[in-house]
Amino acid sequence: MSELPPPAERTLADVEDGLHMPLEDAILTQRAVRRLLPDPVDDAIVLRCIELALKAPTGSNGQNWEFVVVKDGEAKAGLARRYREAWRIYGGLGRWATRQDPPARRMLDAVQWQVDHLEEIPVLVVACLRGGRLPFVPLPPVGESSYYGSIYPSVQNLLLAARAMGLGAALITLPLWSTTAVRRQLGLPLTVTPCAVVPLGWPRGRYGPTTRKPVGQVVHLDRYGNRPWLGDATASARD
Amino acid sequence: MSELPPPAERTLADVEDGLHMPLEDAILTQRAVRRLLPDPVDDAIVLRCIELALKAPTGSNGQNWEFVVVKDGEAKAGLARRYREAWRIYGGLGRWATRQDPPARRMLDAVQWQVDHLEEIPVLVVACLRGGRLPFVPLPPVGESSYYGSIYPSVQNLLLAARAMGLGAALITLPLWSTTAVRRQLGLPLTVTPCAVVPLGWPRGRYGPTTRKPVGQVVHLDRYGNRPWLGDATASARD
Repeated sequence: MSELPPPAERTLADVEDGLHMPLEDAILTQRAVRRLLPDPVDDAIVLRCIELALKAPTGSNGQNWEFVVVKDGEAKAGLARRYREAWRIYGGLGRWATRQDPPARRMLDAVQWQVDHLEEIPVLVVACLRGGRLPFVPLPPVGESSYYGSIYPSVQNLLLAARAMGLGAALITLPLWSTTAVRRQLGLPLTVTPCAVVPLGWPRGRYGPTTRKPVGQVVHLDRYGNRPWLGDATASARD
Repeated sequence: MSELPPPAERTLADVEDGLHMPLEDAILTQRAVRRLLPDPVDDAIVLRCIELALKAPTGSNGQNWEFVVVKDGEAKAGLARRYREAWRIYGGLGRWATRQDPPARRMLDAVQWQVDHLEEIPVLVVACLRGGRLPFVPLPPVGESSYYGSIYPSVQNLLLAARAMGLGAALITLPLWSTTAVRRQLGLPLTVTPCAVVPLGWPRGRYGPTTRKPVGQVVHLDRYGNRPWLGDATASARD
């Protein structure tokens, strides 16, 4: 791979080839990268990530998404304030809950960094949905699920595209705890609901493998509790 | 590419190389493939898809997902009955709403096929979440969003992995309209909520590009309604 220009000078042309990364590698190495440089990110790179996000499915192909790319200092500071308010409660509880769990504590430390530096991160993408609910879908739990099922697949595409172009990214929701405040800050009409935030920037850290429970532990056959692949599922899945 | 064995004889070894497909190609050609062959799908392939699904993020890294792989005829028939019940209302409304929209009507026709043949599809993956809500997250909209934000990124990974291995897949929720009925059918405890179904099988149709609104139409800068990339965003993003 040829040497990349310094972060602030990188253009889409410098990083676009990354999108040819094998799917499996992108999936295996995509992880929350929260510590980001303040250097700007070329708009074209951000748009390319969102363009690929739009290839994800939506309920009834409604494509009822809106993405607000927040770069303005004041707007970022507003989201950062909301993040800090929520983190005051959530982070405290989290610290208590993870007092004997060093890996979880390391994650909290990274979130703490993000909370402290959110307004310095060059781009905050706020993924939103239009419409209170999908048209025609009956209301109960499945309606709720369908609704968010129309935004999070696109967010995952965005995270994978960011990873492939070497851009740091993570999925967070706490800065949105007050929908009213966020609507006011971003001028969102009542018909548009902010769902998730993806801070984007060039990483201070790096991407790498994640640790997960073995697949056999969370896969049930036909009936919950029937887990025939509970042994070494990964190995058997690869036989 | 070497000739694949007939669908029913395909093993993971035959299709696993597909996972090296460039990320961009996988994203650009992933689409709902609803018309599927009844031929069985090797368990190892299904597990591989789910294993890659598990690399997606979850709120607080809770990994509070459960995947029920439904292959049993009776369990599939139960989900098919629920699907038909919901489709009787939803499909009727959809037909009326799309009477002058041929592409949307074609999508409805594909869904109709799926509704009529759900129990013949070899595998239905039911993606579930444990816990009513994420621990420590305050309740309102953002809590709901965080909750579903812990399952749909994984579902998108699953869809991309299926696409890369040539397996047909789609994201649906209507068979789950009655959470109670589905819980009974699959033996899910009250603490586990079924969120989405992905029918998997070898495609009768094929994958291919999707059509989407131009990115500039759904991207706002700093404030909703401020759309500087409204022109030919794709071209400008590629400059």
